[in-house]
Amino acid sequence: MSLESFIQLSRPAVEHELQELLKAWIPEDCGVLRSMIAYHMGWEGDGSGAEAQGKRVRSLLILLTSAAAGGNWQKSLPAAAAVEYIHNFSLVHDDIQDNSHTRRGRSTVWVKWGIPQAINVGDAMYTLGLLSLSKPRESLSGEIAESSAFILQQACIKLTQGQYLDMSHEKERFIPLGTYWPMVEGKTAALLSACTEIGAVVAGIDARRQANFKKFGYSLGLAFQVVDDWLGIWGNTEKTGKSVGDDLVAGKKTLPILFALSQKKNFAERWSAGPIQAREVERLSGWLIDEGAKSYTEEMADNLTKDALFSLKRAVIDENDYSVALKELAESLLKREN
Amino acid sequence: MSLESFIQLSRPAVEHELQELLKAWIPEDCGVLRSMIAYHMGWEGDGSGAEAQGKRVRSLLILLTSAAAGGNWQKSLPAAAAVEYIHNFSLVHDDIQDNSHTRRGRSTVWVKWGIPQAINVGDAMYTLGLLSLSKPRESLSGEIAESSAFILQQACIKLTQGQYLDMSHEKERFIPLGTYWPMVEGKTAALLSACTEIGAVVAGIDARRQANFKKFGYSLGLAFQVVDDWLGIWGNTEKTGKSVGDDLVAGKKTLPILFALSQKKNFAERWSAGPIQAREVERLSGWLIDEGAKSYTEEMADNLTKDALFSLKRAVIDENDYSVALKELAESLLKREN
Repeated sequence: MSLESFIQLSRPAVEHELQELLKAWIPEDCGVLRSMIAYHMGWEGDGSGAEAQGKRVRSLLILLTSAAAGGNWQKSLPAAAAVEYIHNFSLVHDDIQDNSHTRRGRSTVWVKWGIPQAINVGDAMYTLGLLSLSKPRESLSGEIAESSAFILQQACIKLTQGQYLDMSHEKERFIPLGTYWPMVEGKTAALLSACTEIGAVVAGIDARRQANFKKFGYSLGLAFQVVDDWLGIWGNTEKTGKSVGDDLVAGKKTLPILFALSQKKNFAERWSAGPIQAREVERLSGWLIDEGAKSYTEEMADNLTKDALFSLKRAVIDENDYSVALKELAESLLKREN
Repeated sequence: MSLESFIQLSRPAVEHELQELLKAWIPEDCGVLRSMIAYHMGWEGDGSGAEAQGKRVRSLLILLTSAAAGGNWQKSLPAAAAVEYIHNFSLVHDDIQDNSHTRRGRSTVWVKWGIPQAINVGDAMYTLGLLSLSKPRESLSGEIAESSAFILQQACIKLTQGQYLDMSHEKERFIPLGTYWPMVEGKTAALLSACTEIGAVVAGIDARRQANFKKFGYSLGLAFQVVDDWLGIWGNTEKTGKSVGDDLVAGKKTLPILFALSQKKNFAERWSAGPIQAREVERLSGWLIDEGAKSYTEEMADNLTKDALFSLKRAVIDENDYSVALKELAESLLKREN
């Protein structure tokens, strides 16, 4: 099965699962709270629809992992909904923390309803995610739900650590290259590896294969972030929708930038002198290339991609339709242009 | 056993449980994140100590309920720590939402470290609470931990509903009396009834007695809030540490105020004309008395206190040292002067 056919097949079930949780746990008399959540999830309000909902990559990862491991993807829907709400709770809080005014082309929750309500919307979404795994279900054994919840909560505590490190470094102009990985582990890899581990747990495979699936998600998460960092400087602006060198002007601590800082050459000297102007982007991007930051980033992306695909190969014993689609998903995330 | 002796006995174990969770889940390289949490919990920083830690009423309720129901209070320590972190996460977020600069005489987390970090501190504390019940423990069966987590998450979703209702009413000058109870249910009663229900679940008593313990916590929560509202207007200022009629000047939607508004007499007329000044407090407090708001509030507090103590009596079959201390705790919360 192609990835696209699986998305066509599973996506309505994921949205249904998410919407049922919202209806079950937020009563009518809190109608606006419900609407705020439905707005962020892309179901309601200005600009709602497929574009606003995003790709739901994390739920896809759970469903496809569980099916690639020989399980029934429908059984992992509660876990998929849990991860999706938890990821989205982190986005709602992240938008406040980063002072972001738009997400997927729409006003963020805090811009529309204010910071106090937006904090609460995030808290409610986090709780909806937890409830998805806590409520006893016929289709899900207590033991599996319990393990999945524990894996997810461990990812969440790492998420707050990544967020803490990221915010702590915001005001520093120089940070060592070594701080990049713990930050990315928390912000991206922890939740993606939780997804592939949970998929394996729901499928009920042995611990060794579970570990390979987990490792697959972990490397995938790191690789995804490194590719993102590459695109932030050298991405095709028509495809990313961002200006060339956006990350340079914003002063983001991405991998190519941290690498170049560690080289202490022209780039590092200019960087330490203060904010980068748009007209300098071409020259600085050239220095990044000359000082090895581009090739270092590409090498890292390649190695991590290889690690991810190698772990996936070891995890999947018998190739099936779903494992093919899962590989396609991984490749689409790592070879993307936006 | 007196309540005081039980506090002396159990308090070090509660603090130890809470601190071990922090050390186990927030690593050294996130030292400042750890410190921010330790600061809020009253263990570190300016003004740390017993006063800053507060009374840990919610963990006391769990421990005493489980022991009053014939269980071993030590077995409910993980649940007690979970509730305490969850209550404190809600306080950290609440302080941002209410723009509160101090709590228990100390600067709030957001005042010290900024709103973005404070949001993240709350998220991390919520997760620490969840991890307390998710991590497999020898002393706690999976089934009991699972039920406790589910009860707690249901309380959390109600907490976000109460918070939503409270914030939504903030800008309205008039709100109907009927909206008071769902708000208080979410903000206070949901978590207190979760505490007494969890205590009963950990003790392993039958469903009927569990329900009575739960009802006890629920009525206790409502009564607690009504008493708080009474103190906010008529409390002895030397004991509450607040000025007389603080809640009038702040325009809070407390029970006596909502009752008086529903009467549509002098108080309601003055209230609708705009903010109350400190010099008007005495006159308006008199109107509240004349229009029946004080006696209504006292009647409600009395009825709810009776409900709480009646449910407690039905729940406790064989009085023991702990049930005596639990009754003392309930009475101290309802007959307090600050």
